[in-house]
Amino acid sequence: MAAQDTDPGVNFYTRKWVRPEDLNANGSLFGGSLLRWIDEEAAIYAILQLGNPHVVTKFISEINFEASARQGDLIEMGLVATEFGRTSLTMRAVVRNMINRRTILTIERIVFVNIGADGSPAPHGFNGITYDRDRMPVSLGG
Amino acid sequence: MAAQDTDPGVNFYTRKWVRPEDLNANGSLFGGSLLRWIDEEAAIYAILQLGNPHVVTKFISEINFEASARQGDLIEMGLVATEFGRTSLTMRAVVRNMINRRTILTIERIVFVNIGADGSPAPHGFNGITYDRDRMPVSLGG
Amino acid sequence: MAAQDTDPGVNFYTRKWVRPEDLNANGSLFGGSLLRWIDEEAAIYAILQLGNPHVVTKFISEINFEASARQGDLIEMGLVATEFGRTSLTMRAVVRNMINRRTILTIERIVFVNIGADGSPAPHGFNGITYDRDRMPVSLGG
Amino acid sequence: MAAQDTDPGVNFYTRKWVRPEDLNANGSLFGGSLLRWIDEEAAIYAILQLGNPHVVTKFISEINFEASARQGDLIEMGLVATEFGRTSLTMRAVVRNMINRRTILTIERIVFVNIGADGSPAPHGFNGITYDRDRMPVSLGG
Amino acid sequence: MAAQDTDPGVNFYTRKWVRPEDLNANGSLFGGSLLRWIDEEAAIYAILQLGNPHVVTKFISEINFEASARQGDLIEMGLVATEFGRTSLTMRAVVRNMINRRTILTIERIVFVNIGADGSPAPHGFNGITYDRDRMPVSLGG
Amino acid sequence: MAAQDTDPGVNFYTRKWVRPEDLNANGSLFGGSLLRWIDEEAAIYAILQLGNPHVVTKFISEINFEASARQGDLIEMGLVATEFGRTSLTMRAVVRNMINRRTILTIERIVFVNIGADGSPAPHGFNGITYDRDRMPVSLGG
Repeated sequence: MAAQDTDPGVNFYTRKWVRPEDLNANGSLFGGSLLRWIDEEAAIYAILQLGNPHVVTKFISEINFEASARQGDLIEMGLVATEFGRTSLTMRAVVRNMINRRTILTIERIVFVNIGADGSPAPHGFNGITYDRDRMPVSLGG
Repeated sequence: MAAQDTDPGVNFYTRKWVRPEDLNANGSLFGGSLLRWIDEEAAIYAILQLGNPHVVTKFISEINFEASARQGDLIEMGLVATEFGRTSLTMRAVVRNMINRRTILTIERIVFVNIGADGSPAPHGFNGITYDRDRMPVSLGG
Repeated sequence: MAAQDTDPGVNFYTRKWVRPEDLNANGSLFGGSLLRWIDEEAAIYAILQLGNPHVVTKFISEINFEASARQGDLIEMGLVATEFGRTSLTMRAVVRNMINRRTILTIERIVFVNIGADGSPAPHGFNGITYDRDRMPVSLGG
Repeated sequence: MAAQDTDPGVNFYTRKWVRPEDLNANGSLFGGSLLRWIDEEAAIYAILQLGNPHVVTKFISEINFEASARQGDLIEMGLVATEFGRTSLTMRAVVRNMINRRTILTIERIVFVNIGADGSPAPHGFNGITYDRDRMPVSLGG
Repeated sequence: MAAQDTDPGVNFYTRKWVRPEDLNANGSLFGGSLLRWIDEEAAIYAILQLGNPHVVTKFISEINFEASARQGDLIEMGLVATEFGRTSLTMRAVVRNMINRRTILTIERIVFVNIGADGSPAPHGFNGITYDRDRMPVSLGG
Repeated sequence: MAAQDTDPGVNFYTRKWVRPEDLNANGSLFGGSLLRWIDEEAAIYAILQLGNPHVVTKFISEINFEASARQGDLIEMGLVATEFGRTSLTMRAVVRNMINRRTILTIERIVFVNIGADGSPAPHGFNGITYDRDRMPVSLGG
């Protein structure tokens, strides 16, 4: 079972062990690395919910960096879908320290857009979360 | 809830979206990248089970690459502790395609060793899996 | 002379040539890479304004991804200080395509905090922009 | 306004904050990292001057490493076109410490060649520097 | 002359200088980095022996991590072909410290498969080691 | 036995398989990547000759890029010591395509300096090449 946030609904999957290459020149975790990790995790989440590998980041709401992290820390990234638009998906994201469960940052709204074969936004046809992997064709394509 | 493997006990956490930088010169996923990812995931798992950030890879049993992966594929890494030695922890690892659940590779035994303050193997004092995060002191250290 | 934005005050320095390693699995520029680049550029800007290499990202206001970029595109990052707090510095950021000058993203407020020798926020003593490099001691330290 | 070198004509754009991943095993900045950065910056400069994304490094004159840099240092890269050949562009490059303006290295001649649709050197038709971005077609291509 | 292992037949080519980016969070060399390096070296070896750039990792026998390495260490990777199958090549691999020649790890069997134009295993037609570079067509392809 | 260059004395060790992450935005090998690789290889060579891990790049003579390389190409780096100064070592470097043995670039003189405990140039006491690994103390240090 994935770890439950105090905030119901957010499940945590991908984990990172903070290494030298993730640090800024002061020896603490780069804010920019955190943002890159959460964007990649959000893309994976959106692909599974929309059944389409062609999704793009459209909007990220304000980000408050509540705590920092250091080399050797274990952190985990959590997401939950909060709104299905016609061509978009909105998610809430939490990054936290795995040991003390202290929140590192929270993002209320990350919006991804579903892209069609012509490269523009396309309806995805879903209006609720799947907890399974039933939306993606088995042959994903390259 | 984390996805259950057909093999009872293995839970899947960290996910990867295969990007250009993960490919070999033929455009398929590097075997070496897979090995690096599973080793990092095993380290995180061992740290949580042994309550100690000082762990090292000691042994990896044979690896059969059953299927490959390509750019855009979603893959996930699963682990379960299978044996608690006096100073070691043995895990079973599975990497699979998130969509079709096809196994990419399985490793029956990855052994990590618990390292003490003097840099040599030290007893860890545990003999079973925790499903919580109760073994690590809250202040992990840098 | 650095290129002037239509928005007075923003100057553009660091440039990127989008390479394969910067792409997501769809072949367009990773949102997360953009965020990492702008966070690094903001850190450099803040260090020069506050005369202190110990600065941390504290807050990023909402981000609207207006246009994407592809392999081979040239992009540039622009910043301007908009507010000097007692222990903080607020900046406005623009990332744009170097050729057509189309905006890729804008962030109204990136806030960095000045960190003192004890690791907590410390007054920086400045209340306006320097256009020179007169605030940093010549011997920066490692 | 971009910072002026004491050497008239060289303007400095891209900046780097030296991080752990840029260091060699002795903890000082890799000579090879410096060379990679200046080559990328020269490519961007050449693309803007020649109005063509297909340019290649042809020649680099001797390089004297005058000073080193350490983690946390801020460095900047400066370039100026010094000669327009029929199919080539020659640039002068300077890398320096942003704070004390001490030169880290100077390269008198970096030569890039303009490549045509057939993959071989092609005349570019320019004989002087542009300070604008007027040479590149607005639609750059992928 | 390449350095000879005490084990006759293994020749050492590629060398690494262990840098900060190769370390785990404890400051010792990542097991996963070692595995990535040896997999890349095995691919190069297999391409030269089979005269075909399309080769894939199929099997790796058990790995015993005998010694660790630290930042600044010099290590070298050694390989020798031990068996030519109809569509496969089996190699033995050794990674060792360049100074004290202490073995870091040994892998008895790394098996690569020769891939044909249709993407499936194809006979390679060789049954012994070449010490020259006579098997690859001069024009390798992209 | 390491491959012999037509130029007597240069031996080739480290090999690279050109991957997507090594390419520039045009899909050919980055000049800057080549320079980084040859600088790392020269550092390893100098450490072994001078018996000291504290060496720095001081000078690189002019570089002519004779041929390019593409994804999937195999390349190898060759070096030979050409002059032992009081505190310096001069090497000649060749990078070439492993298959057709065509030279990619040649550098007549790469000069490294031997650094003492006080951080300044120090005499190394050697005046000729070793073909063994007899100059480095067995315990290299971290």
